[in-house]
Amino acid sequence: MRYLPGEAQRLPGNVASLASHQASHFLFTVADGVATVTLNRPERKNPLTFDSYAELRELFRALAYAQDVKAIVVTGAGENFCSGGDVHDIIGPLTKLDMPGLLAFTRMTGDLVKAMRACPQPVVAAVDGICAGAGAILALASDLRLATARSKTAFLFTRVGLAGCDMGACALLPRVIGQGRAAELLYTGRSMSGGEGERWGFFNSLHEPDALAGAAQALARSLADGPTFAHGMTKKMLQQEWNMGVDEAIEAEAQAQAICMATNDFHRAYHAFVAKQKPAFEGD
Amino acid sequence: MRYLPGEAQRLPGNVASLASHQASHFLFTVADGVATVTLNRPERKNPLTFDSYAELRELFRALAYAQDVKAIVVTGAGENFCSGGDVHDIIGPLTKLDMPGLLAFTRMTGDLVKAMRACPQPVVAAVDGICAGAGAILALASDLRLATARSKTAFLFTRVGLAGCDMGACALLPRVIGQGRAAELLYTGRSMSGGEGERWGFFNSLHEPDALAGAAQALARSLADGPTFAHGMTKKMLQQEWNMGVDEAIEAEAQAQAICMATNDFHRAYHAFVAKQKPAFEGD
Amino acid sequence: MRYLPGEAQRLPGNVASLASHQASHFLFTVADGVATVTLNRPERKNPLTFDSYAELRELFRALAYAQDVKAIVVTGAGENFCSGGDVHDIIGPLTKLDMPGLLAFTRMTGDLVKAMRACPQPVVAAVDGICAGAGAILALASDLRLATARSKTAFLFTRVGLAGCDMGACALLPRVIGQGRAAELLYTGRSMSGGEGERWGFFNSLHEPDALAGAAQALARSLADGPTFAHGMTKKMLQQEWNMGVDEAIEAEAQAQAICMATNDFHRAYHAFVAKQKPAFEGD
Repeated sequence: MRYLPGEAQRLPGNVASLASHQASHFLFTVADGVATVTLNRPERKNPLTFDSYAELRELFRALAYAQDVKAIVVTGAGENFCSGGDVHDIIGPLTKLDMPGLLAFTRMTGDLVKAMRACPQPVVAAVDGICAGAGAILALASDLRLATARSKTAFLFTRVGLAGCDMGACALLPRVIGQGRAAELLYTGRSMSGGEGERWGFFNSLHEPDALAGAAQALARSLADGPTFAHGMTKKMLQQEWNMGVDEAIEAEAQAQAICMATNDFHRAYHAFVAKQKPAFEGD
Repeated sequence: MRYLPGEAQRLPGNVASLASHQASHFLFTVADGVATVTLNRPERKNPLTFDSYAELRELFRALAYAQDVKAIVVTGAGENFCSGGDVHDIIGPLTKLDMPGLLAFTRMTGDLVKAMRACPQPVVAAVDGICAGAGAILALASDLRLATARSKTAFLFTRVGLAGCDMGACALLPRVIGQGRAAELLYTGRSMSGGEGERWGFFNSLHEPDALAGAAQALARSLADGPTFAHGMTKKMLQQEWNMGVDEAIEAEAQAQAICMATNDFHRAYHAFVAKQKPAFEGD
Repeated sequence: MRYLPGEAQRLPGNVASLASHQASHFLFTVADGVATVTLNRPERKNPLTFDSYAELRELFRALAYAQDVKAIVVTGAGENFCSGGDVHDIIGPLTKLDMPGLLAFTRMTGDLVKAMRACPQPVVAAVDGICAGAGAILALASDLRLATARSKTAFLFTRVGLAGCDMGACALLPRVIGQGRAAELLYTGRSMSGGEGERWGFFNSLHEPDALAGAAQALARSLADGPTFAHGMTKKMLQQEWNMGVDEAIEAEAQAQAICMATNDFHRAYHAFVAKQKPAFEGD
């Protein structure tokens, strides 16, 4: 921003860097502005646990302030994305909780989705193999989704006696693939194939299994190259306008884009264009 | 529910059973938890009349309390779904009504859609042949839609000088097939083919004409097998979150899913899984 | 309307006719109820300028009262639709504006979209070749979109360091093509091909380049043939119900459709049907 140069960096509480951050319950790396979260229990198809849920939530909250992360990739180790909440580690204990305990759990999982959508970095999910239950929600909560044709995405809450309304699915999924297709997946719990997912707009593109990670990194790389301040505004407004009238959304964008026009990146782009060069964005 | 065993059954005003219910203006049967509504005036392609509108509205209102109906199929006799409001029985009389009379009619038809969406059972439309006008709205107001390739679905209100905003179409159709395609169908009144409907997400799947009824019954059958309490919550939240912000929807789902986690069906699913059996859901 | 015959025509401030209106910064013609706006600087692929933005906004505001325009076609001269805000004429000057100046600009462009959506006539965009930046928004803000396979539509704001939230794009685009595809186009600025646009529901149909103008005129012609009062209500309700709950939308449509049932066009349609004739709508 031209008006407060350097000010953002001095805001108290900001995390200067997550480059050396070590995660306990999954893999976390940062390379050249791209953070990669890898669920890493491949022998079980990367299930989520109470601990990994909570750590993911905290990580995405911290990412909101990380100045060296500009885009995020979420993926799974081995040939699967995520099998969802583990039956033994999560479902079993849940059957023993009282109502305040149950609500504390469903709010924790919902808070993970909120944190993924509140951080300014675009999140790219790279989905191969099994993508089930809460794993399907992690993909859904991402901004962009790449997958393989063999991937199987199932919102299978109904299979364990639960409703499809988990972690925001009844709000998010209809907006991605339409109300009718979302209803089918949420009522039946059936798998969506990679091909269906691409055809329905759930996946942005399909890739060969051995090319998937590279494609996700390349996409995240291109987003990290900026303009990252503007990307953060795009992400914010996609949430912010979710529940506005059209005219109110247009006014909201007039304000948001005016802010972006006051950034140096906008000026850099103009001067690069005039000089017939590629702009080098810096995120301010 | 664990907390109020048997209580729901004792709520005053609940309908114990619709199994022996007889309808006057269409066919109504209940078999093993699946209710089937069949519009039955095949020589006229199953038009709606003032009487059938009102009886359908009352039926769906009663279904909200029917304890022996867990899923609903809506279809038409012969080789057509429904030709909509009959020109002679409905359009003609409407041209003679004053404004309070007109509003009473449009509210009655709208109340049918509200009732279809308010009952907890998933509604499966089985669409062959002509599906026009208010008939197209009946399909649209259902949760899931199966059809034949030869089916023709037309929101043809414009053809009788009316607007596309009938019984909720301008709200519902854009969420199912997207704003651009909905606008075309509503402005022009043109038929959507079965193939287009499948490609656009209006129909969940296409079937051969002689296999359609069986496919719809099988889908309703699988939904009636439960978990029906959870299915009712899925349906409720798909409506409830229609007009919420994302974060509010996530909190709403945290509460709704915590409720489902306190049901016996959730426990049954867990114990069946541990015992490597198929769960037998009971809807409580 | 039966209740106020001739009254609408006498409302003060109404524009009797735009038939002889001459535009300064684009071509404007009216033929038999269809207005055609042609961006006309083909050697530069029809960019927008401060002047053309403002004149377009004023034109669409005037169209709300034009009684001899029943449908509108927006297109570009030569083999392109619109290249968006001109880099030299718009981007350069914007880099020199202060914040009130920037907001005045983004509000002016947003007001153009508001005006396109507020006028009662359906707007048909005919898109060939380049459709970029604000040009892509002009297409998006239209009610219906026809295109060629070779057309290239790009929301390329990110390429000049800006956010995807321009003129309502983060609200409008997800409702047309789904949240996931919209996110990709807005984050990356990549071109959507004509084929993708048709498959995703952005374009209603594709045409050969030399048949595009004719197809757009024919579609506008058929809409101009009416029922135009009802079409205006369809358009109004598609906006009005954007941010309502389902039940509220159904009540809103009960009122809106009751109004349409009090028009003469509804009666004309009924009597024509009884007489086995094609109705001749007159828009009252």
